[in-house]
Amino acid sequence: MNEKIVKIGLVGFGTIGSGVAKLIMEDADSIASRTGLRLELSRVIDVDTTSERPIKLPGNMLSDDLSQLLNDETITIGIETIGGTDAAKQVQLKMLESGKDVVTANKALLAEHGNELYRAARKNGRCIAFEASCAGGIPIISAIRSGLAANKITAMYGIVNGTCNYILSNMASKNEKFDQVLARAQEKGYAEPDPSLDINGQDSAHKLAILASIAFGYEIMFDDIFVEGINNISQDDVHYGREMGYCLKLLAIGQKDEQNRISLRVHPSFIANDNPLSQVEGPFNAVSIFGSAVGQVMFYGRGAGMMPTASAVVADIIDVALGNSGRTFNHLNIRPRTESELLIDKIDNLVSKFYIRIMCKDQPGVIAQWSKVLAENNISISGALQHEGKGPDDTVPVVIITHLTRQENITAALNDMEKLDVIGGNPVCIRIVDIPEDKD
Amino acid sequence: MNEKIVKIGLVGFGTIGSGVAKLIMEDADSIASRTGLRLELSRVIDVDTTSERPIKLPGNMLSDDLSQLLNDETITIGIETIGGTDAAKQVQLKMLESGKDVVTANKALLAEHGNELYRAARKNGRCIAFEASCAGGIPIISAIRSGLAANKITAMYGIVNGTCNYILSNMASKNEKFDQVLARAQEKGYAEPDPSLDINGQDSAHKLAILASIAFGYEIMFDDIFVEGINNISQDDVHYGREMGYCLKLLAIGQKDEQNRISLRVHPSFIANDNPLSQVEGPFNAVSIFGSAVGQVMFYGRGAGMMPTASAVVADIIDVALGNSGRTFNHLNIRPRTESELLIDKIDNLVSKFYIRIMCKDQPGVIAQWSKVLAENNISISGALQHEGKGPDDTVPVVIITHLTRQENITAALNDMEKLDVIGGNPVCIRIVDIPEDKD
Repeated sequence: MNEKIVKIGLVGFGTIGSGVAKLIMEDADSIASRTGLRLELSRVIDVDTTSERPIKLPGNMLSDDLSQLLNDETITIGIETIGGTDAAKQVQLKMLESGKDVVTANKALLAEHGNELYRAARKNGRCIAFEASCAGGIPIISAIRSGLAANKITAMYGIVNGTCNYILSNMASKNEKFDQVLARAQEKGYAEPDPSLDINGQDSAHKLAILASIAFGYEIMFDDIFVEGINNISQDDVHYGREMGYCLKLLAIGQKDEQNRISLRVHPSFIANDNPLSQVEGPFNAVSIFGSAVGQVMFYGRGAGMMPTASAVVADIIDVALGNSGRTFNHLNIRPRTESELLIDKIDNLVSKFYIRIMCKDQPGVIAQWSKVLAENNISISGALQHEGKGPDDTVPVVIITHLTRQENITAALNDMEKLDVIGGNPVCIRIVDIPEDKD
Repeated sequence: MNEKIVKIGLVGFGTIGSGVAKLIMEDADSIASRTGLRLELSRVIDVDTTSERPIKLPGNMLSDDLSQLLNDETITIGIETIGGTDAAKQVQLKMLESGKDVVTANKALLAEHGNELYRAARKNGRCIAFEASCAGGIPIISAIRSGLAANKITAMYGIVNGTCNYILSNMASKNEKFDQVLARAQEKGYAEPDPSLDINGQDSAHKLAILASIAFGYEIMFDDIFVEGINNISQDDVHYGREMGYCLKLLAIGQKDEQNRISLRVHPSFIANDNPLSQVEGPFNAVSIFGSAVGQVMFYGRGAGMMPTASAVVADIIDVALGNSGRTFNHLNIRPRTESELLIDKIDNLVSKFYIRIMCKDQPGVIAQWSKVLAENNISISGALQHEGKGPDDTVPVVIITHLTRQENITAALNDMEKLDVIGGNPVCIRIVDIPEDKD
């Protein structure tokens, strides 16, 4: 078979960039035999040209001068693995302007400036491929855009942050405290030294913005997404939830109803123990998608890490070089939103079941007080749990599971509860997410 | 956006064909808005032109005369949903010869004659797309060919037959007997009136032949695959296995080692209860794939049924119409095998753990006898289980779990055991499959 040579420039020689370079250089033969494409890394750009990396580059391939890449017309594909939103955006724009297709893993950039970049790509007759931006090595973006192209996608539920999932699943299975698991996650490289973007849910929201825009076909702004992280999750709640048949996950949720109203949210979520997503442990990611024809499909794998992410970047390079990405990108139909469109549903309108934990003083009449608050806010109770034994300040934990209720009613009830003398501290409130299972 | 009109001919107006027609006709607008392609069903061919179907065709679209489709040059894509291997093969060849790309869900045909059909397609400058042939609506073929294109695939473990999975998972969860569950599966439409192709493992083997040929890059003959069905699975073994921490699944397994030796087999398999595949219940399918860069990924969804299969067929139509399938098909590198290549590993060489159940007479010296047989065949025991209580003919079940052992040693030992007076009936032997989990 005739091999087509594909020359590649890489900007950003950190962990992901090193993985990409390694995969291209070490597996060029096997990739050529599978695809007919001979991938050649021509130029690697990074401000740091001296540090040791997991892969050795030949001769003077590494440089800190971007123009060497931009001006090399034999390079047809530029990879951006810098991360962050400022420099990376300029790099992508320059690569597009100099006639190169762009492959990127940069979720923050696409979530915040994707629409602008897509327009720049179209203007220059180029494409941007971004499989690696969501869920690492799992080919979820190509699944939504090609594999499920015959479906109207009605909902997606994703565990898309490995750090959070590692923490929550270890809190549940090993009975460890948040800080303890976080420290181990950092040791193992599953969490950054500063894990705040992961823990506060923003990283998941970045990925949701990208996935929802291609699944639902509308420009999604990062601000459209309601975001709550796992910062305040206590071990107690993980365990009380378990007792009641639930497993705690940080879910990224996108739903589109018959009226085209889109609901987008990232928050800690209790899901049924027998849902396949509850089996996703440790640093793994998984996304369940509901399509009008296909029903439920789920994709599972490593959502981060050097080689899984490189796997997705190189798959995109192959797809771009075959011309497939370009064609699909041309048909990428992400509609801009008009001012008049009431497209994004507010979190206040969310109808959900809720898990509420309050720390009650152990004295007569307490139940009467908190149940009165719920009743006044039109909230009906489906289950409650109070163990014997005392907590801090002579309080006892009471766990309440509500029937379906509007978020704004819950918010009002929680405010009212905080004012009760018989309740210590702030009530804890975690949404219960009923993932529709089309299971026999 | 300009819409490109794509005219489609469909041969085989049964369940799957009806689903495809329904999806194309009812969702044409939304597909056009997502992809820029306006799919138009031009002609439907079936020998039966009178029966009621779930979708009404306009005017004289339905005919029993294939030439009306072949001679219509505006039809660029032909869908074959007849099933079976004889007529379907002729139809595909004729469609290719008349210049149409082919989309098919026909696993039996591709497993048995795929290589011949691929050559015919190449000769005519056309392509064959077959996403729907394996695992219904799950985009597993595009995942292997595109999403994981940067990976050397080392192994795949698939639950690819919904009928068998429905039977085995209900035997486990509802404590029902094989025949009882099969009858309900037939009522629900999860099993054919004649379920033998499913139950005996052949359907799974067809799918494995297709998946393995694209994952490993060699022509796989259907006869290369060792096949054992679930015909003889008893409820007892499902339950003894569970007690020992295993879940019983019919797995389609493909492995390729460093020396390019390929092992292909379909058989009932005990897998660890905490493996994600063990959570796949009812008629669902799932395939775990191990790639050199990506690690483990798993794809899950409905592996059969009218609309999930139609979802995959229509995704292929879109991919063919965009030109993507053609490009990928041209690079589909399935090497023919030379006579000298010792490519396919024989089942006798399999090294595995085994579950053995024997029905022993309840008398002194029995353990000494069966353990001697195992020792003579160099088989070491990792666990054994004998409950109190009696079975038929005053025998008691003894369950033995072996350490890693070669299949040929087990086969010899089972033969020797059958000859023992103290053992009633034939020993039951089920392979234990250690799916490598790269889990934290």
